[in-house]
Amino acid sequence: MKFLSDNAASVHPNVWEAMRKADAPDSPYDGDSLSAELDERMSALFGRECATLWVATGTAANCLALAAMCQPHGGVVCHEEAHIEMDEGGAPGFYLHGAKLLLGQGEGAKLDADAIRAVIDPIRDDVHQVQPHAISITQASEYGRVYRPKELTAIRALADERGLGLHMDGARFANAAAFLDLPAGEVAGPVDALSFGFVKNGGMSAEAIVFFDKGLADVAKYRRKRAGHLQSKGRYLAAQIHAMLDGDVWLSNARSANAAAAEIAGACGERLMHAVEANELFVRLSAEERETLRGQGFEFYDWGADAARFVTAWNTREEDARALAGAIANL
Amino acid sequence: MKFLSDNAASVHPNVWEAMRKADAPDSPYDGDSLSAELDERMSALFGRECATLWVATGTAANCLALAAMCQPHGGVVCHEEAHIEMDEGGAPGFYLHGAKLLLGQGEGAKLDADAIRAVIDPIRDDVHQVQPHAISITQASEYGRVYRPKELTAIRALADERGLGLHMDGARFANAAAFLDLPAGEVAGPVDALSFGFVKNGGMSAEAIVFFDKGLADVAKYRRKRAGHLQSKGRYLAAQIHAMLDGDVWLSNARSANAAAAEIAGACGERLMHAVEANELFVRLSAEERETLRGQGFEFYDWGADAARFVTAWNTREEDARALAGAIANL
Amino acid sequence: MKFLSDNAASVHPNVWEAMRKADAPDSPYDGDSLSAELDERMSALFGRECATLWVATGTAANCLALAAMCQPHGGVVCHEEAHIEMDEGGAPGFYLHGAKLLLGQGEGAKLDADAIRAVIDPIRDDVHQVQPHAISITQASEYGRVYRPKELTAIRALADERGLGLHMDGARFANAAAFLDLPAGEVAGPVDALSFGFVKNGGMSAEAIVFFDKGLADVAKYRRKRAGHLQSKGRYLAAQIHAMLDGDVWLSNARSANAAAAEIAGACGERLMHAVEANELFVRLSAEERETLRGQGFEFYDWGADAARFVTAWNTREEDARALAGAIANL
Amino acid sequence: MKFLSDNAASVHPNVWEAMRKADAPDSPYDGDSLSAELDERMSALFGRECATLWVATGTAANCLALAAMCQPHGGVVCHEEAHIEMDEGGAPGFYLHGAKLLLGQGEGAKLDADAIRAVIDPIRDDVHQVQPHAISITQASEYGRVYRPKELTAIRALADERGLGLHMDGARFANAAAFLDLPAGEVAGPVDALSFGFVKNGGMSAEAIVFFDKGLADVAKYRRKRAGHLQSKGRYLAAQIHAMLDGDVWLSNARSANAAAAEIAGACGERLMHAVEANELFVRLSAEERETLRGQGFEFYDWGADAARFVTAWNTREEDARALAGAIANL
Repeated sequence: MKFLSDNAASVHPNVWEAMRKADAPDSPYDGDSLSAELDERMSALFGRECATLWVATGTAANCLALAAMCQPHGGVVCHEEAHIEMDEGGAPGFYLHGAKLLLGQGEGAKLDADAIRAVIDPIRDDVHQVQPHAISITQASEYGRVYRPKELTAIRALADERGLGLHMDGARFANAAAFLDLPAGEVAGPVDALSFGFVKNGGMSAEAIVFFDKGLADVAKYRRKRAGHLQSKGRYLAAQIHAMLDGDVWLSNARSANAAAAEIAGACGERLMHAVEANELFVRLSAEERETLRGQGFEFYDWGADAARFVTAWNTREEDARALAGAIANL
Repeated sequence: MKFLSDNAASVHPNVWEAMRKADAPDSPYDGDSLSAELDERMSALFGRECATLWVATGTAANCLALAAMCQPHGGVVCHEEAHIEMDEGGAPGFYLHGAKLLLGQGEGAKLDADAIRAVIDPIRDDVHQVQPHAISITQASEYGRVYRPKELTAIRALADERGLGLHMDGARFANAAAFLDLPAGEVAGPVDALSFGFVKNGGMSAEAIVFFDKGLADVAKYRRKRAGHLQSKGRYLAAQIHAMLDGDVWLSNARSANAAAAEIAGACGERLMHAVEANELFVRLSAEERETLRGQGFEFYDWGADAARFVTAWNTREEDARALAGAIANL
Repeated sequence: MKFLSDNAASVHPNVWEAMRKADAPDSPYDGDSLSAELDERMSALFGRECATLWVATGTAANCLALAAMCQPHGGVVCHEEAHIEMDEGGAPGFYLHGAKLLLGQGEGAKLDADAIRAVIDPIRDDVHQVQPHAISITQASEYGRVYRPKELTAIRALADERGLGLHMDGARFANAAAFLDLPAGEVAGPVDALSFGFVKNGGMSAEAIVFFDKGLADVAKYRRKRAGHLQSKGRYLAAQIHAMLDGDVWLSNARSANAAAAEIAGACGERLMHAVEANELFVRLSAEERETLRGQGFEFYDWGADAARFVTAWNTREEDARALAGAIANL
Repeated sequence: MKFLSDNAASVHPNVWEAMRKADAPDSPYDGDSLSAELDERMSALFGRECATLWVATGTAANCLALAAMCQPHGGVVCHEEAHIEMDEGGAPGFYLHGAKLLLGQGEGAKLDADAIRAVIDPIRDDVHQVQPHAISITQASEYGRVYRPKELTAIRALADERGLGLHMDGARFANAAAFLDLPAGEVAGPVDALSFGFVKNGGMSAEAIVFFDKGLADVAKYRRKRAGHLQSKGRYLAAQIHAMLDGDVWLSNARSANAAAAEIAGACGERLMHAVEANELFVRLSAEERETLRGQGFEFYDWGADAARFVTAWNTREEDARALAGAIANL
């Protein structure tokens, strides 16, 4: 029973079906009809005008969005445990041509306006120090925590005050939306660009970069090609996104994953290191306890010496979640 | 009847089937069993040890290979009409951190040792001029011309003499192999790295970078992640490559495309601007003649004011090729 | 008698004197009083508002100016024999983060609007090709040719029509100004930024980047620091520039150099490959003739197999110029 | 009485004299006789073979050295308060093409082997995290602390064990050497490259990059040109370095600065935040106390809310140092 990650889960049947339908010949790159419909589709979903580009990975999505907001000599404020800082192999340094990540701190891998101020206020406004150009936050965060709309509004206000762009890494945006049970537009809040993830949620190889500031998309479309991310058979990526949006599969998949996580969380009590709001659990477990669980067939990652990380996916079976809950309860 | 390009053709049934089979859970990124088998697979195909990385596009393949061969202050010799120079949106400048393309000339968009010498000999060996670090050639070339093994050997000798890396852009490598009817290892010749294309030949979204100098792969694997090209569900890319190699689909597909091109070429006579060795035809046609053909339902690109480009694909129907041949003959 | 280049000539006495005066303590970087006066000084000289940054080399000046005009995914149109293309070791690729030089042709290493159109008009307006963002011209050109004000106006008109920045490499701007005998503002014409060279004209290590579009300077000042070009004892650079402007030393020095070149040119007749408008001469001379001249003590560079380049400097002695003229006349 | 920094102090008379002597014509760039002698000069000073390049700033020196050691996808371990992290405007991001600084901690802005292990040991050896390629330490440190030879040996052993390059930022190397009173080779220890600073110690605009691993210099010489740091009148930079080495002016200047700092330190007692080993003092002083000192004509920087930084220079007058010592004693 795998609780390693949601990032390699199987592809949802609707996604397969949509990809097969896209097999008919159409124009290359993003000149096909499916790609062309994405802007309208996302504008309707988010309730405001936006421009949408597909790419194959969240790393590319995050970095293309940020590169459109931050000049090479600038910096991007993010949490010190953000994916762009910890797990993207230095991709921001590559895509942003040497711009710097300016690291903030906060409970649950979330930033708030005060935490951001603590990063940028000490920066002298001179050429000797890297000046902030943008902020990047993650919805849901690396620890599965979710920003509430008013938290987003407060960050936006600070961004506006300081003239900073605002980006949201939404690798698990769907899980946040399922948790908040609010319209997508409120879950994204007033960001300039959103990396809207589908791969972890039942897609195969398509993420959307949604630009609410459409001028950014005009830059990013050149940068996407320049990064080798403009696939010639892009219609298969657009098809995946449409399939996920059709009938709100993106939400129902995320609800399944969240529900499985909640089931497990119910058995963890004091063991939980972070409130479980999405589909990730960080659970205090001794080495012995982890060995016990593994002996029972559960796969997961250690999280330091005294804890473990469990991730549920769109297709985690209810019985597996219950089994894990039971096993933890019995420790 | 579409002769616009092979780059948006439908996906081969075997590829679909292999992708579906890959749906079972496996490790993320390139930790899955299909990805793990690629090195051995390609080593067998090429008859020498190699390391293989998948990526989604030819642009990424070319640039990751070249970035492993050429330092940021160096240059890459390529034909002035090479894809990396003309059609990749400046991707080499991005991936190679500002390294320079050093442009050579040659019939049919091919370079030979003399053409390369004509580029590099005038470069003063001092810090004021960008020094060559690598050579990139295209098999088959932008004009559908194919390098013979002895031509490759001559270029390799020059590369060795000058200490240069040697890369082959094989976006249409299969078409070259089908034309030469030689083992893959002879079609690639003694290059250090090959961008082995599948997308134009019936794949969906997987190209292979085959490193015969395995040290280059050790660098490129970090660069692939850093470029956002390490997909988490990489097994779907590996599956495509295996499907193309199984039963030599890559060759039979290319043979089909080449045969269709040859059929059309037979009707073009003096109109042909370049010998047709692969699946592209560059045909002298007046504006009036092109209008006539378009009126008959043929789709293709203009090539300057007095010519047209036709590209056949793995699934170009014989009757369509015959129809086009007939239409051109009747002009 | 050295006619190799003006780039290593001795430093003008006034420059030395001004540097010594600057020895008194002052604020570091560009916080000193001499640096602070540069904006006003240049605004007066050019008859329009500008912002000025000093740097140590023309390469840094050119590249910092262009980096403020051209995004990493864009291109800069320049002559195929421009210094930024031929002699700066790939610096534009570095400073512009992989942006591309788009090469044009023209008599005497000058570009005109038609030549620029010939470069940019064939570029498809799509993401597959690098789009032009800026134009760079050289006053005086690599062959010592000078742009007239109306030529500059025509290039500006094209730049405006296409939304391109316009940069002037003025490594030998003084020589152009001395030739035209027009106010500096007309010699620069309506460019957005000028690399105003002093090193070749009697300075030691200070060039000015003059930004007529002051927004570009706001970017460039960060990039200058980031490039390690913000010297802590910047007052010694500012002092050099002031010394060159005081009493129009920059012009009198250039007039001397031009006069020496004219003296020699008078003896060259049909041998001249380019009209001599500044301080460079390109002279058809056989290998034997060059040997003869070298035997008489003249030092200069070969220019291909059948010519030589002679450069005069601010301190070329009249008698040396006359001697060379005589020697050439006697060949 | 200025104790702001040593970075804008006047130029030593011997340096002026040597620059004037260099005024005679010679070859451009680093082709002159003074530049050519630097390798031998430094090899003698350090007691081992090295290759030396001059540049105008410490930022350029540090970044060119590191760029030769660290690939764009790698990282450089440095102290979290290192100059390259805090005060170089993001230059390492630029010169190293997006490589990452990996920040360590340590008393007095010094790193030791344990501190470096604390940075690199948690880095997973996979492509998702930036791998260390080099270490950079500062001699004397940002807080004026000096590495002892055995500390350097321990760091070198770790570097070798992990295959990392080792760079020393020696902006105040002379002050460290004066403090240790050991041969230069022992002060530098077994590093691969040293940024040997002269500007803060009586020079005008010349720093040396000393490469003990000469292969690194072969790369750096291209990068220097590419960064616009190869001045055409380089002989004036080489002359500065020779003047500083002649008669050990570099050491006597540093001894003067250190002595002035020691004089002041003697009056500070418990107020000292860091032992004074070089020419910087970090002194606990209330806002009121600082106001008092400023009222007496002393200029210096605040260091946070409750302290001040004083820096002495080669030409700090003994009476000024005594006056400051007295004033602090009287607070």
